[in-house]
Amino acid sequence: MQLILPEIRADIALRLDRILAGMARNEFDAILINYNANLFYTTGRVFRGYVFINKEGKVIYFVVRPNCFKEEDGVVYIRKPEQIPAILTEAGISVTGKAGLELQWLTFTDAQRLMKLFPEAECADCSDLLREARMVKTPLEVELMRSDGIHQAEVYRRIPRLFKEEMSDIELQIEIERVLRLEGCLGFARTSGALMEINMGSVLYGDNADAPTPYDFALGGAGMDSSLPVGANGSIMKPGHTVMVDMNGDFNGYQTDMTRVWRIGEIPEKAIRAHEASRKILRELEKAAKPGFPIAEMCRIAEEIVDAADLRAEFMGHSQKAGFIGHGVGIELNESPVIMARNKGLLEENMTIALEPKFVIPGVGAVGVENTYLVTPEGLQSLTIFPEEISDLLG
Amino acid sequence: MQLILPEIRADIALRLDRILAGMARNEFDAILINYNANLFYTTGRVFRGYVFINKEGKVIYFVVRPNCFKEEDGVVYIRKPEQIPAILTEAGISVTGKAGLELQWLTFTDAQRLMKLFPEAECADCSDLLREARMVKTPLEVELMRSDGIHQAEVYRRIPRLFKEEMSDIELQIEIERVLRLEGCLGFARTSGALMEINMGSVLYGDNADAPTPYDFALGGAGMDSSLPVGANGSIMKPGHTVMVDMNGDFNGYQTDMTRVWRIGEIPEKAIRAHEASRKILRELEKAAKPGFPIAEMCRIAEEIVDAADLRAEFMGHSQKAGFIGHGVGIELNESPVIMARNKGLLEENMTIALEPKFVIPGVGAVGVENTYLVTPEGLQSLTIFPEEISDLLG
Repeated sequence: MQLILPEIRADIALRLDRILAGMARNEFDAILINYNANLFYTTGRVFRGYVFINKEGKVIYFVVRPNCFKEEDGVVYIRKPEQIPAILTEAGISVTGKAGLELQWLTFTDAQRLMKLFPEAECADCSDLLREARMVKTPLEVELMRSDGIHQAEVYRRIPRLFKEEMSDIELQIEIERVLRLEGCLGFARTSGALMEINMGSVLYGDNADAPTPYDFALGGAGMDSSLPVGANGSIMKPGHTVMVDMNGDFNGYQTDMTRVWRIGEIPEKAIRAHEASRKILRELEKAAKPGFPIAEMCRIAEEIVDAADLRAEFMGHSQKAGFIGHGVGIELNESPVIMARNKGLLEENMTIALEPKFVIPGVGAVGVENTYLVTPEGLQSLTIFPEEISDLLG
Repeated sequence: MQLILPEIRADIALRLDRILAGMARNEFDAILINYNANLFYTTGRVFRGYVFINKEGKVIYFVVRPNCFKEEDGVVYIRKPEQIPAILTEAGISVTGKAGLELQWLTFTDAQRLMKLFPEAECADCSDLLREARMVKTPLEVELMRSDGIHQAEVYRRIPRLFKEEMSDIELQIEIERVLRLEGCLGFARTSGALMEINMGSVLYGDNADAPTPYDFALGGAGMDSSLPVGANGSIMKPGHTVMVDMNGDFNGYQTDMTRVWRIGEIPEKAIRAHEASRKILRELEKAAKPGFPIAEMCRIAEEIVDAADLRAEFMGHSQKAGFIGHGVGIELNESPVIMARNKGLLEENMTIALEPKFVIPGVGAVGVENTYLVTPEGLQSLTIFPEEISDLLG
């Protein structure tokens, strides 16, 4: 088996170009990648090992496990990272100057171990440069995410048929999980850092949408257990409330992030108004947010619409608020850029961002829409095409 | 809401005693906990924040999120860890000598940030002392794991009814996932480190059991995608093969780990013989493995039985082998102790360990049994009580 499949080599080369440009900008002489999401980005696979890249564009894949790849094209098997320096020396590669390690992802112990591999270099953090490389997607990455969006929409289309009266929120979630899995969802939400733990997403019913979570999700939910305090809490779903579905869209190592809301019977006008405010925010941002547009300005546009609708208290949570209205998405659920007022960055073409202007209406539940978008010169293009209206699950 | 629920306070106090004993043995003056599994161990909850413990037994819970706990009994809200030193000073607590941080779990960046909180102390790694505290379970922890085992067995009992002829391995897995979730499984396999990624466990059919994985699981499987290379690979299940089920048993923040094997029609004598060797290993270890028993000796007993049955080539994998026959389990799937030949430790009463002597028979599939055991003075007590024979899924 080849480590990098021939059919994705050209796309992988584009990703490498992005990393090399970042290395040049940040004056790295070499970097050593070990974090699963970054291994997947640079090879199309998760494996145990390390990808070495130097500024001349020389790449060596050091593989520990599995034991099934051909040793060719810079693929070298090792038992432990301490073997790396001798192999580099033998290949005529020396690392001096600035060597990059993923210090925001590696454990302290692992980072210290890897730092010893480059005694002649100064070790520095290359996490941000990898984040920046990954935030603008290549053609294959966009294609994979487009495919995710189609599968995810197909599953959402079947949600009304999964609902039964007097069902609990977790029971509905379990049926959605099953349909997702049968559609090809891998069932694993790859996230960055310890601040997000989740199984396959969340179904938020009624006032549980307002239960604060420790995690960095836009909204919370008490969860079923204090060890995983997010999402459905086992409430029986009754008329007069909303059901927000924000379930996993990873079918191929990349993921789309998509939220839709249903109602059970009639809901108050305020909830409908808030939902329309969310859609208005998305429509305005779809037009305005082109390459070069300031990310902070996106938040300002959203807040203007929220204030005009007098919904500030309900926006992005009620008893506890999220500090963002969207986020990059791709290999991980929480990628760069974070769409928040203090982000001084600009949008770039082929970024993929999830925008999720959401509201919590006490006594009713959560409303709002989340789409994953591709940033194009014409504005935002949705990868999660599915009706946004609030339909009644009672038919 | 109280951070620590009154009904678990007495048990939490026992855990704190274990940590304090470890701190005394390793001469720590204070430790600061931030890793989710350790927050859960010391409070019964996952939250965003830090648990400070000094050698005098003073405990302060620094909470960032969620915003719903009463500020009482040492619960202090903070926005960022840099506020911790002033709060400690105000409480008359100074940290000198050796301060412990979870350097095997914290990222390098986070560890560096937290080290600055204790300028008068020498910061050292307290990960092993927390691992050692957690590896011997308290009465409540044992009770929760006993409950897990009962739920998990109830789900396994229903597996034959989920099987249909010409079904794929992943389709069977999805139906098991649904029954697990309806039984209360949280659907999240909490593991330690980057070397294990999985959704809810694995169903290994036929030769896919021999596909090597990058992860630290006992057996592999190619998985459905190169981004998550473990477990079912979509094979249609045909007669003459085995189906090994090793699915998640986390119903309450603790988990049991349990594997059973079914066959489709008749399978070769060698597979049956290997399965019986696995059961013989478990029976011998159940008798021998009492508090004080050397862990390495457990491996020697297993290998003797394997060699007597002439199955060394098939033991713990065929094309790629695992380096262990079992592991501690509790809050995380991969806890201490690791049951491997080079572990110089001894068993202790109330350790909970999963033993999984497994074999891969090429052309047939995986066989063997995994149980989660409590170490008692009478030997190992199974928490995963369920028939171990290989039954035919064709009825």
